[in-house]
This record gives sequence, structure tokens and C-alpha cells, in this order.
Amino acid sequence: MITEKTVHEFLDELASDSPAPGGGSIAALAGAMGTALTAMVCRLTIGKKKYVEVQEEMESILQEAEELRGELTRLVDEDTEAFNGVMAAFGLPKETPEQQVRRAAAIQEATHEATLVPLRVMKLVDRSLPLAVRVAEKGNKNSASDAGVAALMLQAACSGAALNVRTNLGSLKDEVFVRETTAQVKEILGRAEAGVREALAAVNKAVT
Amino acid sequence: MITEKTVHEFLDELASDSPAPGGGSIAALAGAMGTALTAMVCRLTIGKKKYVEVQEEMESILQEAEELRGELTRLVDEDTEAFNGVMAAFGLPKETPEQQVRRAAAIQEATHEATLVPLRVMKLVDRSLPLAVRVAEKGNKNSASDAGVAALMLQAACSGAALNVRTNLGSLKDEVFVRETTAQVKEILGRAEAGVREALAAVNKAVT
Repeated sequence: MITEKTVHEFLDELASDSPAPGGGSIAALAGAMGTALTAMVCRLTIGKKKYVEVQEEMESILQEAEELRGELTRLVDEDTEAFNGVMAAFGLPKETPEQQVRRAAAIQEATHEATLVPLRVMKLVDRSLPLAVRVAEKGNKNSASDAGVAALMLQAACSGAALNVRTNLGSLKDEVFVRETTAQVKEILGRAEAGVREALAAVNKAVT
Repeated sequence: MITEKTVHEFLDELASDSPAPGGGSIAALAGAMGTALTAMVCRLTIGKKKYVEVQEEMESILQEAEELRGELTRLVDEDTEAFNGVMAAFGLPKETPEQQVRRAAAIQEATHEATLVPLRVMKLVDRSLPLAVRVAEKGNKNSASDAGVAALMLQAACSGAALNVRTNLGSLKDEVFVRETTAQVKEILGRAEAGVREALAAVNKAVT
């Protein structure tokens, strides 16, 4: 699994001439980093006298952020696997008409699968960003910039995953799925943009 | 060194109640990921018949992106060290007036040092983003979304590093440095915003 490599090795593998891991895995990893920073700010707030009023809320945010981090981290590897699935389908034999039909169907199925992974990243980010906003507003002021970076990483994760969803949608023939997913992407992107703006406004208040 | 940990361990360490690594290291890492993806798209373009016209340019971008990735990766660890330096200065004894003076000076010096690291991240991103724009425009179209994610990660790196610079500037007494750095931050942020817009416009053209 790519997440079992060291950060150095991971970056080398990313930069290599193998297309996976690529932008899809990085979007998931950016999401995982955003939730990890959110969790850190919670931990740096919990137990501090000055923040006793938000202790319970921070504990509940911490638990949710850690769950989301686990899911987003798994998707780093899943995106790479899904991409390899698409490549495998493209590699199927295409000599006979039967093979061509089978290959085309396999490509559709694998691409559909590869669309669901970044879409899942987007949905997880959609749940993660409000947590980053909340810790930016109510968490330890000394960690305000960390909450801001959390929100920025989640936004990059969301936009990056959206690029991957849209690229895959371009090859899919299932019009209903394409239409519904396009609408979902747009909706989540809009919420992410509003979320990061809110988080950064809170951070700016805290650092100035 | 934190970059010698596995991605899993890195995320655990990030989420922990230790303030370092924090947002500053993540900004540097996001920059490293952006340059790694830029390098990947170059490698997936070089040697392809369809892209023979941009082969030389892609080779030169690849070399520069890999240099920048090396520097940004080193800054992941350096940011953590600089932050620990600030913490160490705050931990100096403050019983006697002499100790108080020495401690205040040490805090100023360490904070100045901790400001230079994210500022360096911003300057490296400032050189990296035009490369991502170029590969989005001229690189392998099959990797367009990767070039887009590269630009998004670089933008998040730039904005995240800027938050860290500004937080540190708030504690610094050297007014000339504060004024000059504030101006630099603004200038680089403006270029980054324009750069990511350009890159995404090229990606949108390629994926639709």
C-alpha cells in the first residue's frame, strides 16, 4: 500500500512516470491532512482552562475528524487501485468483435468505479470542512493558522477530486449518472468555497 | 526526520497533541506534492510522439520541478525544527531581569527564523506554479487533471504558508522586516491566484 511508504518514497513514486498514484490519490491525501490538522487543533484545545466551554464540542469534533481521516486515508490507496483497474480494462484484448464489446463494457465499469472514489472524497470533505470552520472559530487561538491550513487543504482536496470526477464523467455513457453526479459536484464545490471563506475569516480575526 | 516516517505515521503525528508538525510543514508538503505531480506530467509527456514539439521544454521543466521538490521537501522538516526553536525560546528561564531580556531576544530571533521558512515555501511555490501552468497547457492531455491538482496543491501551499508568515509577523518587533515581508506575501499570493486560474482554464479546455 502506498500509504505504508515513507513520505520521501511516496513523493518519488508520485513524481515517477507511472500515472498512479496521481492527482486523485493526492486529493484524498490532502483531505486526510486537513482532517488530521483539525484533530490536532481539537487536541490542543481540549483540557485548556480557557476553552472549557467548548471542551465537549471539541471532543465530538475530534472523534468525527478522526473517523473522516481514516476514510480519506483509505481512499488514497483506493484511488490508485481504481486507476489501475481502468488501465487493466484498456489492456484487454480487442481482436474479435466479442472482445471489443467485452473490453468496452469493462472500461465503462472500471471508469464508473474510478469516478466513485473521488466523489467519495468530495462527500467526506463536505463533512470535514464544517469541522475545520468550527475549530477555526472556537478552537485554541494559538493554533488558528493550523485550522486555516486545514481548511485550505480540504478545499484543495475538494477541487482536486472534482477535476478527477469530471475527467472520468467525460468517458461515461450512463447519462443519468453523469447528470446527477455533475449536479452533486457543483453543489459540494459551492459549499466548500463558502466553508473555506468562513474558516479563513475566523483565522484572520484570531491572528490579527 | 518526519519525512522518513510512513504516510500513515506522518498523519498520526500530525493529528497528535504535539503542535509540530503543524500547518507550516503541511504547506511545504503540499508544495512538494504539487511539484511531484508537475514532474509526473512531464515524464508522461516526454518521449510521446504526439508531444515531440514540447519535448525539450518538458525536459527543462522536469529538471526545475525536481529541484524545487527537493527544496520544498527539506522545508517540511525545517518548519518543524523552526517551530521547536520558538517553543525552546519560550521555555527559557525568566526569573531575573537579565534572563527576561535574554529570553525576549531569543523569542524574537527564533520567531524571525520561523517566519523565514514559510516565506521560503512561498518563494519556491512562486517558481513552481508557472511550471504547473505550462504542463497544464502543453503536457499530455491524458494527465490534464494531474496538472490541475498540481496547481491546486501549490495554491494551498502558498496560502497556507502565508497564514504562517502572517501569524509570526504579528509577534515580531522589527518593523522594516514586517513591512517588507507583508508586501512580499501580498505580491506572491496575487501571482499564485492568477497562476492557478490559468492552470485550471487550461485543464478545463483539455478535459471537456
